[in-house]
Amino acid sequence: MAKEKNAPRRKRQLDVEDYVKGVLENNRAVLAQTITLVESNAQKHFHLAQKVIGELLPYTGNSIRIGITGVPGVGKSTLIEAFGTYLCELGHKVAVLAVDPSSQISKGSILGDKTRMEKLGRHKNAFVRPTPAGGTLGGVARKSRETMLVCEAAGYDVIIVETVGVGQSETTVRSMVDLFLVLMLTGAGDELQGMKKGILEIADVIFINKADGNNKLKALATKEEFNQILHFLQPATKGWQTKAYTCSALNGEGIDEMWNVVGKYVEHTKNSNLFHERRKEQLFLWLHDTVQSQLLTNFYEHPKIRQSLPEYKQDIEKGMITVTIAAQKLLNEFNISMK
Amino acid sequence: MAKEKNAPRRKRQLDVEDYVKGVLENNRAVLAQTITLVESNAQKHFHLAQKVIGELLPYTGNSIRIGITGVPGVGKSTLIEAFGTYLCELGHKVAVLAVDPSSQISKGSILGDKTRMEKLGRHKNAFVRPTPAGGTLGGVARKSRETMLVCEAAGYDVIIVETVGVGQSETTVRSMVDLFLVLMLTGAGDELQGMKKGILEIADVIFINKADGNNKLKALATKEEFNQILHFLQPATKGWQTKAYTCSALNGEGIDEMWNVVGKYVEHTKNSNLFHERRKEQLFLWLHDTVQSQLLTNFYEHPKIRQSLPEYKQDIEKGMITVTIAAQKLLNEFNISMK
Repeated sequence: MAKEKNAPRRKRQLDVEDYVKGVLENNRAVLAQTITLVESNAQKHFHLAQKVIGELLPYTGNSIRIGITGVPGVGKSTLIEAFGTYLCELGHKVAVLAVDPSSQISKGSILGDKTRMEKLGRHKNAFVRPTPAGGTLGGVARKSRETMLVCEAAGYDVIIVETVGVGQSETTVRSMVDLFLVLMLTGAGDELQGMKKGILEIADVIFINKADGNNKLKALATKEEFNQILHFLQPATKGWQTKAYTCSALNGEGIDEMWNVVGKYVEHTKNSNLFHERRKEQLFLWLHDTVQSQLLTNFYEHPKIRQSLPEYKQDIEKGMITVTIAAQKLLNEFNISMK
Repeated sequence: MAKEKNAPRRKRQLDVEDYVKGVLENNRAVLAQTITLVESNAQKHFHLAQKVIGELLPYTGNSIRIGITGVPGVGKSTLIEAFGTYLCELGHKVAVLAVDPSSQISKGSILGDKTRMEKLGRHKNAFVRPTPAGGTLGGVARKSRETMLVCEAAGYDVIIVETVGVGQSETTVRSMVDLFLVLMLTGAGDELQGMKKGILEIADVIFINKADGNNKLKALATKEEFNQILHFLQPATKGWQTKAYTCSALNGEGIDEMWNVVGKYVEHTKNSNLFHERRKEQLFLWLHDTVQSQLLTNFYEHPKIRQSLPEYKQDIEKGMITVTIAAQKLLNEFNISMK
C-alpha cells in the first residue's frame, strides 16, 4: 500500500550535528534541548549527549565561572538577577545554572520555580536554567558541569552557578567554578550559626546583602566583623585575601563593585597561573569523583552487600566482629582481598 | 638420629590465648607484643591479630579517648607528659598513642623518638607507644584504632591519641576519639595561618600552652581572641561550646583544669547520648572508609588502570574526551557500567 502523501510527518529527531550546530549558533531552542539531553537519565540519551559534548569541547572554557551561595532568605535570586542584568547590559552573555539536590524533596524551594529571574531570563544576553533533577548530588553535579560546557560553547562568557547554603553542595560547586562568592546578611554571628561549617574557608568573596535603608549601617558593621574573622582564616585561593563587601539587590549598590572584584580576582589568578591549574585539577577531581562514586554505588547496591551489610553492622555494634574483619568479609564477596 | 637433649629450644610462639590472657592481665611485655602484632604488615600476622582483637572486643570501650593536636613547637609531648603523669597520680591508667603518617618520611619528627615522654613512660600506670609505621594514613589509622582497643582491654581508662597539625591526620584522629583538644601558642593570627584550615571547627577544647613567665599575659589575651573567634563558629560537638583555656606544661598550671573540662565534656555528651551515638557512627565510618579505600586501591593499582589512566588524563586536558566518557572507559575495564 502506498504511503499517504499528506500524512503529518514526525518531526525529525535531532542528531549530533544538529545539536552541535544549534549550540554553536546559540540557537536558544536547540541550546535548551541540548541541556535537556544532557540532563536525561535515559541510557540512549546518555551516549548521544556525550557525543555532542565531545564535539563541543574545543569551544568550551572561555568563561568566568562563578559560584554563588547563601542561606534561603539571603536574597540570592534577586541579587543574581540584578548582577546578571548588569553584566548583560555591559554586553556580557550570562548563563545562570543551579545545583540544588534538595529541590526534588522540597519541590525546588528556590531554584526550580519557573518565574524566578523573569526579567533576567527575558534578556537576549541571558540564559537561566533551573536545577536539574537527578537524585544524588553527584548526578546533579555531573549534569551541571556538562551544562556549563554546553553554555560556554554557545558563547556565554559568564556562568553563574547558584547553590543553597546547606549540605555538601557548596563544596561540589566550589569544585566546578573559578570563584566562589558567599552572600550573607547582617548579624554575622547568627548568620554563621545557620551556615554550614567551613563555608567561610571556601569563599573567595563575601557580600553582605540588603545593605540598604535602615539596614545599611548594620551591614557595614557586619562587613567589618567578617573582615576581622577572615583575617584569622587561611584564604580559599592562594595569595588572594578573601574580603567582605556590602551590596543591595534593591537599589543596585555594590553590584558594580562585585564585578570589579571578580575582575581583580581573575586577573590575579591568571597571572599566578592558578586559574588554569585549578581548572585542570578540577577536571581530574571530577574524573576521580565519578570513578569513586561509581565504584561505591556498584558495591553498596550489589544484592549481596545490601543483604549482608546491615548484619555486619549489627555484629560490629554488638562487638561480635572487628571492623577490619567485617570489611574483609564484605570485600571478599567482591573477590577483593585486603592489602 | 636422636635429638640432642640440651639443644636450646626455640621460644614458643604466642598463640591467640596467650595474647588475650597477657593483655587482660595487663602484662606489659605481652601488651607490647600484641601491638607489634597488630601493627605488622605481614599477612600471617594479620589473621592472628584479628583473632586476638576479636577475643578482646568484649573488654574494650571503657575509656575516654582524647585526641590532641598542635603544630610542631607547641610543646605537645611535654604537655602530654605533664597531663598523663597528673592522671596517673590520680590513679588513672593512661595510654598514649600517636598518628603521624609523615614520620616515615621525616624519620619521626616528634613521635618516633624513643626518649620522648621518658618520665611518663616509666610510670607504672602509663603506656607510651610511638606512631606505627605503615605507609598510608588509612593504614596508620587502622593500626591506631586497633591498638586503642587492645589498650582498653588491658585496662587503660584514658587513651590519648597525639597527632601533628598537618594534612588529613587531625580529621582521622577526630574520627577515632571522643574529644579533640587543640594546643595553640600565643599570637592567634600567626598560629592559625600555620594550621590546617578548619582545625578550629573540629576542636572541642583549645588550650593555649606556655602560659608562663613573661608569656602569661599574652597567653591570656590570646585565649580571649580565640573565644571571640569561636563564638562565630559552629561547635564541633552539638550543644557543647568549644572554649579556649591556658596552661603551662612547665609549671603545671591549667593541667587540672584540662582534666576538669574533659570531665564536663564527657558528662555532657553522655547525658545527651551523643557519646555513644558518636562511637557507633565512628565504627560505621571506619567500616565505610576501609571498604572505600580498598575499592579505590584495588582500582587504581590495577595494571590496566595504571597504564591507561595517564593517557585518559592527557586526553581530558587536551579536550579530546569528556570526563564522563573517560570515567566510563576506565570503569569498563573493570566491567562496571555507569548508572
